[in-house]
Amino acid sequence: MIAELVTTGSELLLGQIVNTNAAYMARELNKVGIDVCFQTTVGDNRARMKEVLAHALTRADIVITSGGLGPTRGDITKEISAEVMGRTMTLNADCAERLKKYFARGGREMTENNLRQAMIPDGAHVFVNHAGTAPGVAMEKGGKLLVNLPGPPAEMKDMLHRSLLPYLAEKYGVPAVIVSRVLHTFGIGESKLETTIDDLILAQKNPTLALLVRPTGVIIRITAKAANEEAARGLIAPVERELRLRLGDYVYAVDDETMEEIVGRELKTRSLSVATAESCTGGLVASRLTDVAGSSEYVKGGVVSYTDEVKAETLGVNRGMLDREGAVSEAVARAMAEGVQRKLGADVAVSTTGLAGPGGGTEKTPVGTVYIAVAGTAGTVAEKHLFTGTRAQVKFRASQAALAMLRGYIRNNDK
Amino acid sequence: MIAELVTTGSELLLGQIVNTNAAYMARELNKVGIDVCFQTTVGDNRARMKEVLAHALTRADIVITSGGLGPTRGDITKEISAEVMGRTMTLNADCAERLKKYFARGGREMTENNLRQAMIPDGAHVFVNHAGTAPGVAMEKGGKLLVNLPGPPAEMKDMLHRSLLPYLAEKYGVPAVIVSRVLHTFGIGESKLETTIDDLILAQKNPTLALLVRPTGVIIRITAKAANEEAARGLIAPVERELRLRLGDYVYAVDDETMEEIVGRELKTRSLSVATAESCTGGLVASRLTDVAGSSEYVKGGVVSYTDEVKAETLGVNRGMLDREGAVSEAVARAMAEGVQRKLGADVAVSTTGLAGPGGGTEKTPVGTVYIAVAGTAGTVAEKHLFTGTRAQVKFRASQAALAMLRGYIRNNDK
Repeated sequence: MIAELVTTGSELLLGQIVNTNAAYMARELNKVGIDVCFQTTVGDNRARMKEVLAHALTRADIVITSGGLGPTRGDITKEISAEVMGRTMTLNADCAERLKKYFARGGREMTENNLRQAMIPDGAHVFVNHAGTAPGVAMEKGGKLLVNLPGPPAEMKDMLHRSLLPYLAEKYGVPAVIVSRVLHTFGIGESKLETTIDDLILAQKNPTLALLVRPTGVIIRITAKAANEEAARGLIAPVERELRLRLGDYVYAVDDETMEEIVGRELKTRSLSVATAESCTGGLVASRLTDVAGSSEYVKGGVVSYTDEVKAETLGVNRGMLDREGAVSEAVARAMAEGVQRKLGADVAVSTTGLAGPGGGTEKTPVGTVYIAVAGTAGTVAEKHLFTGTRAQVKFRASQAALAMLRGYIRNNDK
Repeated sequence: MIAELVTTGSELLLGQIVNTNAAYMARELNKVGIDVCFQTTVGDNRARMKEVLAHALTRADIVITSGGLGPTRGDITKEISAEVMGRTMTLNADCAERLKKYFARGGREMTENNLRQAMIPDGAHVFVNHAGTAPGVAMEKGGKLLVNLPGPPAEMKDMLHRSLLPYLAEKYGVPAVIVSRVLHTFGIGESKLETTIDDLILAQKNPTLALLVRPTGVIIRITAKAANEEAARGLIAPVERELRLRLGDYVYAVDDETMEEIVGRELKTRSLSVATAESCTGGLVASRLTDVAGSSEYVKGGVVSYTDEVKAETLGVNRGMLDREGAVSEAVARAMAEGVQRKLGADVAVSTTGLAGPGGGTEKTPVGTVYIAVAGTAGTVAEKHLFTGTRAQVKFRASQAALAMLRGYIRNNDK
């Protein structure tokens, strides 16, 4: 059962709003096993909308529109849909009555054009709008189904769940559900990751595997189709086990979990407190750690040391070392982590010092160079990184690497 | 000149991510007078992608894809595009060379599959990717143009502005332009703002005015159509003047400027240094200040004081005051700002202390309560706020209010 979503409206075409409706509808339809294979956006232009709907009906079994059901002249979706399905429209008494009540309840006057919303294609199934005025409709022809939903997200969502999904379930049964599980990796590149699991990707059928590059690292999405959610999870489990076996600690989180949540959990379960000393990340590591609800249980605080002066006076980094090694050096990263750990009395501390750019790079220390250190009861460790990208990207990647290093330190030194 | 955008990838089809690329490309293309009349999304499925691209070329003059240019097997957009345009692909020596350099620079190993990105359809125009590895291409056939851009937003945007728009301008000329100018406001609500400029909104035609609520505050978008950019800017200027006259200091930035850039500029032109003392914002104010290139000229650093201990020992907040007033209080906010100003030797300092939630609220101090203080040569000032929303929203809103307060302090005390 293949579906195409057709979203309408010039705001979408002009890019003035992002198409959240298409994403939402796709997600919900996929959950009940309807494959959304195409999404099309078209404006309130008669000829173009007609072409889009007619073409959609050639390649999809179910075409669902959103938008253009309002009372104004520009709202033409229902009219064009009726035309494409070869139907005339008639005033629907029930719909007209509901509209009148709606306006009476709001104490507003109903103008003539509002009655356009009560015009229904002959023989269409009507979906009552419980969140607004525009009813939705469903029409069948030659085994194809064309559905019109309203455009305002609240109305579309209400009608989708209240009326459309039950209607589709009854009509087509629920052939399958689609369940996805996401594994988040850090520290391994897309190509190397693919090489590591190439045979699994080639062998994929159900579940399927997809590698996707995210600012946080590469993610692996495992997607399974089955008769029900439990069966789908049963298909995913052995694939996940095999992936975890091959990737080990590169996998740090699943689904919506973030690196900062994972680090927080590692700290909390061990009753460890943490402190940060940041130069190039400028407070981003501390900010991410404190994005997690309940982080006040383990975050002591941190120091943003953007000048040598603050590194020396607040963190106690040796002035001679700063002059000799430079602020962007492994020695200074180590001293920063040790300094803030001592000063704030934390069990473990992480530091960053580097060049986020775009200016300031040298041959020896190009933009993107970042030293990260972690200090704790098991001693101090340090890493050198070279990140690419904009200033914001270098900052974020450095913060991600710092949190990942913190995670590794805690796990490796857990006796 | 009609364009169709084709975004690819199963994540979009599954609704796991929202299609921000389509909105961005539509906006930028419309600006230069190219009408985006269709947007289509299709997955990494050969037959369906081929059908979508072939169909797009029947109804649009310019078809622009985004996504599917990566090194993996699932990345098929360039290959299918070449097929639709009747071209074979050949390894491009320049592209291969650039890839090798990219990997060498990052110190990473280049695997064989990366070379797929250097395969270019014969006779295609190549767009160099300055933000990643996948080059873009443009191919012509029978008066139609098919363009492949990468999917990662940062790469797509960079290539769009750096290469595609200049390419299209040279090729087609610019029949008309749509120019938008955005005024960013802070500290005034949507309703009050609308009331203040209601007559201007009603009188709008060209330029048009739109009010939009953003996490940073309400923005006003002024959009003009004209034969050329200069004429459009000429239509916008008097409307902007009138808006500024009415809104005064509520308007803090235009277009892509951010609050942190504005604050940075105010500091820099006055040769002032800044420091931060953050509790509930957890480093976010410092991180935003240091998001600005060149911010090391005026950011001394900051302290994230997530515990009373750090507030007392590192910032010198009086222990008695902490016990008496509580950490979330005006007195503590003032003492934090004064403490970090003194300690880091900054000209001006900003502090935040509050409850980001979701837990910890009391009747007297509900979740969302945030005290902000600014200390400097003109004395110390403080404000109490009550923000709504999730933990992340409260953090962000508090950081925005802190930066806005910093801006006001600097401007008001400039003699």
